Amino acid sequence: PLLFIQLNQLISTPAGLQWREMARWIKFEEKVEDGGERWSAPHVPVLSLHSLLQLRTCLQKGTMLLDLDATSFKDIIDKVLSGQSEAAEVQPALRERLAALLLLQPQHQPTKSLLQLLAELGLSPCRGMAAQSWAGSSYCILNAQPRHPEYPAAASLSFQLRNRFRKKVPPGAEAAHVAVGEVEFLEKPFTAFIRLRRGVSLGSLAEVSLPSRFLFILLGPPKVKAYHEVGRAMATLLTDELFQRVARQAEHREDLMAGIEAFLDELIVLPPGKWDPSARIPPPSHLPSPRRRTAVDPLEPHSNGDMTAAGDRASPGHSCSGEELERTGRLFGGLLRDIRRKAPWYGSDFSDALHPQCLSAVLYIYLATATNAITFGGMLGDATANMQGVLESFLGTAFAGFIFCLFSGQPLTILSSTGPVLVFERLLFSFSQDHSLDYLEFRLWIGLWVAFLGVVLVATEASHLVRYFTRFTEEGFCALISLIFIYDSLKKMLSLADAFPINWQYRLDNVTSYTCTCNLSSPGRQGRCWAGPKVSMCDPSSLPTLSLQPPATPAGLSRTQCLDQGGHLLGTSCQYVPDVTLISFLLFGATFLFCIALKRFRSSRYFPVGVRKLVSDFAVILAILASCTVDAVLGLETPKLLVPSELKPTNPARGWIVFPFGANPWWVCLVSTVPAVLVTILIFMDQQITAVILNRREYKLQKGAGFHLDLLCVSLLMVVTSVTGLPWYVSATVISLAHMESLRKESATSAPGEQPQFLGIREQRLTGLAVFILMGVSVFMAPVLKHIPMPVLYGVFLHMGVTALNSIQLMDRVRLLLMPAKHQPDLAYLRHVPLRRVHIFTIIQLLCLALLWVLKSTVAAIVFPVMLLALVGIRKGLERIFSPHDLSWLDGPLP
Amino acid sequence: PLLFIQLNQLISTPAGLQWREMARWIKFEEKVEDGGERWSAPHVPVLSLHSLLQLRTCLQKGTMLLDLDATSFKDIIDKVLSGQSEAAEVQPALRERLAALLLLQPQHQPTKSLLQLLAELGLSPCRGMAAQSWAGSSYCILNAQPRHPEYPAAASLSFQLRNRFRKKVPPGAEAAHVAVGEVEFLEKPFTAFIRLRRGVSLGSLAEVSLPSRFLFILLGPPKVKAYHEVGRAMATLLTDELFQRVARQAEHREDLMAGIEAFLDELIVLPPGKWDPSARIPPPSHLPSPRRRTAVDPLEPHSNGDMTAAGDRASPGHSCSGEELERTGRLFGGLLRDIRRKAPWYGSDFSDALHPQCLSAVLYIYLATATNAITFGGMLGDATANMQGVLESFLGTAFAGFIFCLFSGQPLTILSSTGPVLVFERLLFSFSQDHSLDYLEFRLWIGLWVAFLGVVLVATEASHLVRYFTRFTEEGFCALISLIFIYDSLKKMLSLADAFPINWQYRLDNVTSYTCTCNLSSPGRQGRCWAGPKVSMCDPSSLPTLSLQPPATPAGLSRTQCLDQGGHLLGTSCQYVPDVTLISFLLFGATFLFCIALKRFRSSRYFPVGVRKLVSDFAVILAILASCTVDAVLGLETPKLLVPSELKPTNPARGWIVFPFGANPWWVCLVSTVPAVLVTILIFMDQQITAVILNRREYKLQKGAGFHLDLLCVSLLMVVTSVTGLPWYVSATVISLAHMESLRKESATSAPGEQPQFLGIREQRLTGLAVFILMGVSVFMAPVLKHIPMPVLYGVFLHMGVTALNSIQLMDRVRLLLMPAKHQPDLAYLRHVPLRRVHIFTIIQLLCLALLWVLKSTVAAIVFPVMLLALVGIRKGLERIFSPHDLSWLDGPLP
Repeated sequence: PLLFIQLNQLISTPAGLQWREMARWIKFEEKVEDGGERWSAPHVPVLSLHSLLQLRTCLQKGTMLLDLDATSFKDIIDKVLSGQSEAAEVQPALRERLAALLLLQPQHQPTKSLLQLLAELGLSPCRGMAAQSWAGSSYCILNAQPRHPEYPAAASLSFQLRNRFRKKVPPGAEAAHVAVGEVEFLEKPFTAFIRLRRGVSLGSLAEVSLPSRFLFILLGPPKVKAYHEVGRAMATLLTDELFQRVARQAEHREDLMAGIEAFLDELIVLPPGKWDPSARIPPPSHLPSPRRRTAVDPLEPHSNGDMTAAGDRASPGHSCSGEELERTGRLFGGLLRDIRRKAPWYGSDFSDALHPQCLSAVLYIYLATATNAITFGGMLGDATANMQGVLESFLGTAFAGFIFCLFSGQPLTILSSTGPVLVFERLLFSFSQDHSLDYLEFRLWIGLWVAFLGVVLVATEASHLVRYFTRFTEEGFCALISLIFIYDSLKKMLSLADAFPINWQYRLDNVTSYTCTCNLSSPGRQGRCWAGPKVSMCDPSSLPTLSLQPPATPAGLSRTQCLDQGGHLLGTSCQYVPDVTLISFLLFGATFLFCIALKRFRSSRYFPVGVRKLVSDFAVILAILASCTVDAVLGLETPKLLVPSELKPTNPARGWIVFPFGANPWWVCLVSTVPAVLVTILIFMDQQITAVILNRREYKLQKGAGFHLDLLCVSLLMVVTSVTGLPWYVSATVISLAHMESLRKESATSAPGEQPQFLGIREQRLTGLAVFILMGVSVFMAPVLKHIPMPVLYGVFLHMGVTALNSIQLMDRVRLLLMPAKHQPDLAYLRHVPLRRVHIFTIIQLLCLALLWVLKSTVAAIVFPVMLLALVGIRKGLERIFSPHDLSWLDGPLP
Repeated sequence: PLLFIQLNQLISTPAGLQWREMARWIKFEEKVEDGGERWSAPHVPVLSLHSLLQLRTCLQKGTMLLDLDATSFKDIIDKVLSGQSEAAEVQPALRERLAALLLLQPQHQPTKSLLQLLAELGLSPCRGMAAQSWAGSSYCILNAQPRHPEYPAAASLSFQLRNRFRKKVPPGAEAAHVAVGEVEFLEKPFTAFIRLRRGVSLGSLAEVSLPSRFLFILLGPPKVKAYHEVGRAMATLLTDELFQRVARQAEHREDLMAGIEAFLDELIVLPPGKWDPSARIPPPSHLPSPRRRTAVDPLEPHSNGDMTAAGDRASPGHSCSGEELERTGRLFGGLLRDIRRKAPWYGSDFSDALHPQCLSAVLYIYLATATNAITFGGMLGDATANMQGVLESFLGTAFAGFIFCLFSGQPLTILSSTGPVLVFERLLFSFSQDHSLDYLEFRLWIGLWVAFLGVVLVATEASHLVRYFTRFTEEGFCALISLIFIYDSLKKMLSLADAFPINWQYRLDNVTSYTCTCNLSSPGRQGRCWAGPKVSMCDPSSLPTLSLQPPATPAGLSRTQCLDQGGHLLGTSCQYVPDVTLISFLLFGATFLFCIALKRFRSSRYFPVGVRKLVSDFAVILAILASCTVDAVLGLETPKLLVPSELKPTNPARGWIVFPFGANPWWVCLVSTVPAVLVTILIFMDQQITAVILNRREYKLQKGAGFHLDLLCVSLLMVVTSVTGLPWYVSATVISLAHMESLRKESATSAPGEQPQFLGIREQRLTGLAVFILMGVSVFMAPVLKHIPMPVLYGVFLHMGVTALNSIQLMDRVRLLLMPAKHQPDLAYLRHVPLRRVHIFTIIQLLCLALLWVLKSTVAAIVFPVMLLALVGIRKGLERIFSPHDLSWLDGPLP
């Protein structure tokens, strides 16, 4: 059990001597500040060696009662003062005075809520001072002691119950009391260390009501002033896990002294001139475990930097090495294992989702998925002459995602169209066009083959190859996908400037020359200068001439009416749309900055932790809502999210089912094996790298991965999507990462000063299912969703890309390239790997990334999947130029 | 003299035993990292108590030679090994082997520039490994040791010369060598501590060539492995100022041992389980001075939080209490003292300006001043029917500023029109209008009286009242002025939306209905809907009706031509200006964020310190240039900085000289004493509070203030500006603060880990003079300046306001209001003043601020100067409700 330690000091006040709480410890020290109304922040207790040595002397010479049986504080005091015959240090005459002094009721320092504090601010009457006049320079309102003057024990006990600090004390804790002070009538110090046989509740001795176990009393003549420091040393000693064990088990004084010696031997020492002793050291985020400390060879003390090398290396450690990827050697052996592993969790996959955080995650991921579906749907429609359009994208995402979340091994994964698949579809469609093949039928065969090959890969347990995906491979892939997100959001924003062109040459003075009229007559001749917002063919230099032509046709026709009646827009302002582009950029930037600011709000100091956590969890939703509100209030015609509202194929030339034969020659079904192999590699790499990233050990997943099962799901979904002519889906790295990030669990801090710990992810299927149900329902939610401007969603995309990019070590190392060595942060691998080699590793990774980017963007895109495989080979090649030691720090070892 | 301490350790390599540099110290420890190619960042040396105690034993028992005379390292070794008869610890047979070992040439760890590092990256041949094949798994390129294998002493000396670390060693430093290692043939440890009588250069023993003074040698059998730690303890001991003094003066072993005991007694100790010993503690920014340490009562050790209370309180300490404000009791006594104090510095006021930083300051402050002159000029013109306009503002600023910088006591002050004066002018002008008085003549008399009263105040040394301006007063005033800056910049930006209205109802589909034509006929009837960009009287709902009217007049007339010919603009698009407002907001935001980002760049880790400093010094200029470039490239008609280009009064009804009589009745010259008293209070408060802020002790000004002289200058300038009808000028808080900030001097860091110290401000007159000369010349620089968009300058204003607001403690305390007590930062006053009282103090200050703001904005503005005086009274009243202890922490004591 943990110890709560309270230091009470004897203070002489005008009203006589008083015990007053001065500091308390659970793991770290909290001190009552000057003025006695405030607890300091928890800090590492810094002692002077001097006081520790004084404490040693005290314990050596003073009274020591181990395993005392007592029922009350008075009982204890009596036994300490009288029972001990050897206590010659206190003359019998003084014992009574000492006992009376020790039995004085102590005053505690309450931990108050903000509300209590405010109430006191407003109301606090001048207790006991009302008689003094205001003018009489009594600082009445401000000096009214907020300390509760509850001398009667009953009142003090009720105070213990009301103390908010109680929540911070872990259950099962015991109390230790340290009481120190100067007493005029003593001639030499009186010391006593008492351990009770079992925890006894001693009334209101401590500020919280706990069973007491240890007492340390040090009273002495006023001359030697270090009692406070010795008391602090005793308390600090008692916070130490190892000494606590010794103190609980000690049978003789010698055992205790040996414990102190062991403590002294392990002491860390700061040279006096190099550190300001008044500076408080905040609690470190990582502490050496007591187990490790006992294992340290006492002859080889801490060498300032190398000792925890082994520990450091373990923590950046890396991915799923467990039994998930072991080969069984049997057909479908891995798959069966996956199912056997995941099945017991299936119930909890639903019950674990009952937390408000999940609601935020659903909204956030839904919007991200919807935007993604629109973006990819638009681009697919572009690439395939609307054979697959936005509606297909929505339906496919909803269906595939739902099925996957229901049956997959890792239901935190979000399926989506991905860039590499899009590139392949584009190539396939133009190939079909060039060779007069039916695209959907051709694609159906490829899809069927891919599904077959996928099942073969599952059967042969090919997923165990995932072991060769080290951080090098993952980071290359993750960086590529993140960059695509960033690049796409910026490109989309810039394309707005084409869709809504700004008249950069606009001159206020020429306001009379900007017109746009509808010309219904002689379309042939004047069609030269037809202008819609997307096409601008007018020469701006011809403005004055054009403005001379008066509109010759009925006015009052709107743009749509005019174009519908076969007319043409004529004039200098037709091709421009004022303000829309710029307001879009403002919304884009504001959403991005807002997302970042709200996310960071969690680590600010303002407001209680609960509020900060809530704001940070809902950051993206809040940012979207705020930006949408601004947009709605301003009322400009910004481009909005358009969700299809009718259930029919985008291209009327196709139906909902693709038939395997009929349009193409029979041999196509055989030929399609060739592209199918490429697509299989692509799907396998895309799916499994993402799966490896999501199952990294640092996420502390409890329910295990399901690499084989996931691949099977994706393969079988390929059959359905190919037959119905919907897009193909694999795991989307960035959105899945965002999904996991939005489901982080952290411990509610317990002892003051302890860092909240990352506990893991809320692993469940419900958020995913809800997202994809919403996707399906979206078709009917068009009236609500149409108010969301696209620039806002692009801002969210940018935020997602930037967050994902910043989460990989590669970026840290890229930053190192720009820093002079002496300003670099104290990263673990920099302590162990020479900088040059770190830089070379980074540069090789960047070159691979550049190569991937170029491949993805050019016609060579078809070999992209092979290139992903090549990454694994390059990683293997790195072993030639890096030593295993370096690679284990920078990358993690291959099996 | 400082010591440079190097730790060499004996390492066994395949090529035999080698001495290798492992760590070095000047003030803090730098360690050679694992892999041996990198210096760690400087950190506080953390030791184990164990190794310190071992060191004590070593020094007690080992050889000790104090004041040895020797000329070379060999000489020393010989004397240590043979000379000492008592050195029975080493058998004579082993002495020679030991000497040979000690004389091995050590290898040092070079500190390399980025360039050198890059060169090695690219070129480094496989030294000595060329024979090995590439495939043979030799990590040749990456493992080529960058260490220079210069065994011959000559080469090593040239290496010392090339070592970039030399720059870091302060001149006059001496070297201390610590050599430790395991030696197989020794049976018990051999220890020697040697002090040379005087510094002797020992060749390439150290990595930099310095005269050596101390040597510590510890060699022993391999069993006891702690030699490295003992060596570190010795080196750390030698970095301690107090022990260094002892070591230099010690005559016997006992002196040295006493020094160690003193060191041990002062040790600061961290409990083992509460701190990770491998964590490196970065050097603290404040260190206790060695002098303070010696004064500490050894019986009362560091009480973790209170010891440096006195020091803490001294440093936030406060303003000019020196002899500058003492009363002499003689007429003009203070003024004469000011002159006597400042005269000797007059020459250096020009020579001290020769630094590139001043150039940046001139540009920055010039742009700020010009923007300010335009803003205030515009508002003054508005308030006084152009009796004082932009041109007057420019001329007046240039003239008054120049004279002030030439003759004033504090030439870092920048004169400017200020808000309070503007309010007064507005009231005065409307009073004159209402009572048919000549404004300029009335103002002349007030100005003359103010000048007279000002001289009287100087003569009676009224400036010594400045002693009553505590932080409370200053912060209230400074916050007010900063808020005005922020408010004005935002208001100006919003007013752009009025000047360039956006058509929020613009619909793309209605593009044909937006027209604007010139109507020259029947102005009376259709004038109903006259529209310029600043005035919009058209009802937007009447759009369709209006667009039906074809333009009845010659087209091709531009807006100006049309209005010149008496025409009217008619149509739905006339009153709107597309894009300009939004691009202005983008520029405004971008400039503000850019300023902040570039300023913060100084504390980033990227690039060498020099580059960062340069970028940060020129941050505002760079931000302005970048935004101007973007604006120029885009080419929209954003509002630009308009500088008057002709030298004639803005209002043609006035001349350049105001005559005292003629327009008004004779008694006006007497009546004007009443407003003159108010203006005098205003000027006095405005001027002196700013002066107090600028002369705060924390700026470490060397040349002293000149409160009386400054007030005299301001008063005499009143005469000139009143006679010529130019605006009145006083010190401008925000711009003057920006001026000082841009002239900060910081020490080039010396020892690694030492924080750069703020050395003071470049106190000189040249930057101010240059700024105001540029102001005068601005009238001819219109062609260049007209490219600067106003939104960019407003962005800079916002940055200035925010920076000034953040620099005051009030803002810290306002933030505390929003933080739960346990998350508050560890501020000095929070340790000593109860939170409630801090909050009440803050709230009182905020109420005063609100009152000032309301007063300034309403008709009661005339009593504003009195309110400033009242601030001092309120401060006095605070003494009733706060104890002197609290006030000394929150505010600083009144005299």
